[in-house]
Amino acid sequence: MKVLFLTKMIDYFVERVNDLKKEFPNDEFIIPKNRVEAQQSLVESTVIVAGGLSNEQVLNAKALRFVLVPWAGVNGLPLDLLSKRNIIVANNHGNGKIVAERALGLALTLLGRIVEYHNDLAAGVWHGYEAGSKTDDFWFSLQGKRVTILGLGTIGRHIAKLLSGFNCEIMGYKKNIEHVENVHYVTNNIIEAINFGKVIFVALPLTKETYHIINEELIKTMHGKFIINVGRGQIIEESALYKGIKEGILAGAAIDTWYLYPDSDHSVQLPSRYPIHTFKNVVISPHVGGFTLEGQIGRIDETIENLRLILSGGMPKNVVDLKEEY
Amino acid sequence: MKVLFLTKMIDYFVERVNDLKKEFPNDEFIIPKNRVEAQQSLVESTVIVAGGLSNEQVLNAKALRFVLVPWAGVNGLPLDLLSKRNIIVANNHGNGKIVAERALGLALTLLGRIVEYHNDLAAGVWHGYEAGSKTDDFWFSLQGKRVTILGLGTIGRHIAKLLSGFNCEIMGYKKNIEHVENVHYVTNNIIEAINFGKVIFVALPLTKETYHIINEELIKTMHGKFIINVGRGQIIEESALYKGIKEGILAGAAIDTWYLYPDSDHSVQLPSRYPIHTFKNVVISPHVGGFTLEGQIGRIDETIENLRLILSGGMPKNVVDLKEEY
Repeated sequence: MKVLFLTKMIDYFVERVNDLKKEFPNDEFIIPKNRVEAQQSLVESTVIVAGGLSNEQVLNAKALRFVLVPWAGVNGLPLDLLSKRNIIVANNHGNGKIVAERALGLALTLLGRIVEYHNDLAAGVWHGYEAGSKTDDFWFSLQGKRVTILGLGTIGRHIAKLLSGFNCEIMGYKKNIEHVENVHYVTNNIIEAINFGKVIFVALPLTKETYHIINEELIKTMHGKFIINVGRGQIIEESALYKGIKEGILAGAAIDTWYLYPDSDHSVQLPSRYPIHTFKNVVISPHVGGFTLEGQIGRIDETIENLRLILSGGMPKNVVDLKEEY
Repeated sequence: MKVLFLTKMIDYFVERVNDLKKEFPNDEFIIPKNRVEAQQSLVESTVIVAGGLSNEQVLNAKALRFVLVPWAGVNGLPLDLLSKRNIIVANNHGNGKIVAERALGLALTLLGRIVEYHNDLAAGVWHGYEAGSKTDDFWFSLQGKRVTILGLGTIGRHIAKLLSGFNCEIMGYKKNIEHVENVHYVTNNIIEAINFGKVIFVALPLTKETYHIINEELIKTMHGKFIINVGRGQIIEESALYKGIKEGILAGAAIDTWYLYPDSDHSVQLPSRYPIHTFKNVVISPHVGGFTLEGQIGRIDETIENLRLILSGGMPKNVVDLKEEY
């Protein structure tokens, strides 16, 4: 069986692939050195490890049976085409606990006005007790507040766990209602969910159903609320997010997942078409949820384990429902 | 009895003082409008509510019997002089839970490189998955790490509580060893305490014993460790902190309590004699631990409650041991 890696390979990933080579000496593992080699290997590969594939790539991959996404989001794949060809797609949640930590870190930074205060103090300007006459220039505590978590997968559940010590009342939003540990209420009604929390965490997968689920109409109801997005950018309508901040409806936003990304032609790239990054009550983060050593090891270990299952003739874990898109 | 307020009075504080006026119509409550009025009222006041007093002020306050500090730190008072005159000093811990939240927020910001990434992304520069060739430019997870908390008062205990969901192993440092909830080990050995944690929280009071307790010698042993100070600046020797960062010994520092503060002659003021704020692995915060609405209400409510006890002929809570200085 040929296994092709079309994803960024850190040393740890290469080492684990070397382990597989020893365990499965009759199989072939290809980490292409350039585009030409990638293109050629595509044709005969049975398994591709990739976060994103084009229609053309899938059409060229004549022997393809499995796609392993080395993280959770499968929105970089042509799911309809893969579904038509009955190709099995599996994702993984090995970095979900770290993404959850990013979400909480961003929330505390946003509510704590930590970036704003840092940048001002670096210019000698003080807030708070020391700021002279302004006595109500407060930051905001998360403790004891109502929190909404949109999406109760690995990330959402773990955000609730990390909040154990915060004495928050937590409502979760998910399509199929079930009891979830550390979450006090679960709803499948997005309006009820948004209405509940002072602080809203977005940890949904991007699907046809969740695309722009937070739109202008919904943002208008979010007066005084803080929103943190570690899911995918397009879950929140870009213009609605910008207007919500500009018009002072939202109390603030912390965003890790974006609308614009750098590419080979644009290595320097602002993350939105709007000047979202210019507001003091906005924290921007360059899509680094899970980007710690532990997060990388977690998602790589799960990917390697799934490869091991396939190479042994079995099925991978976390097979994606291509109709549901997650 | 005359009660004099020599501290910044937010509206909520004034309202609570108005409540006291109704409850105790025979007592006098003075919120001075200017320095002259403050100076005059000092002479006859039995109770002064203040975070800081000079030797001269205490000498002038002939009728003084109680000083109520409207927060925890009593390092702004001439404790020896107050002790000689048998004046009772009480502090309060009503904002301790909020200071603890500041500490955790600063830790997650520091380990998450959130300020650094924010400022770079605001200039279009990406870190992480999207940053091209640099594959190990990670941020750091706090989960599962060893944590040391120096000082197990209200703040330190509550840091441990907030960490409940983080699966950390926690060692606390305190002078008198006792079991403390959420803290796995308690030591009175500062070297053992510093050696234990990857992440060190400083939540000690400033006393003769804790002044520069973290000095150059100790910093030299802290290779790869993160330090977060929400206690008082001078617990960490200023030059040692600077050297520790400059020489790459410390992995990073997040500091809320400082060496230099603004005053009436210097409203713009960098917080250290050293350019600590220029390092990417440093987060600076303008001494705003507890500076939320809840934090203010907490410390004000406790101060008012202590005044109520005194005005009813009793003793205040949280009387400070003037020898121990906390």
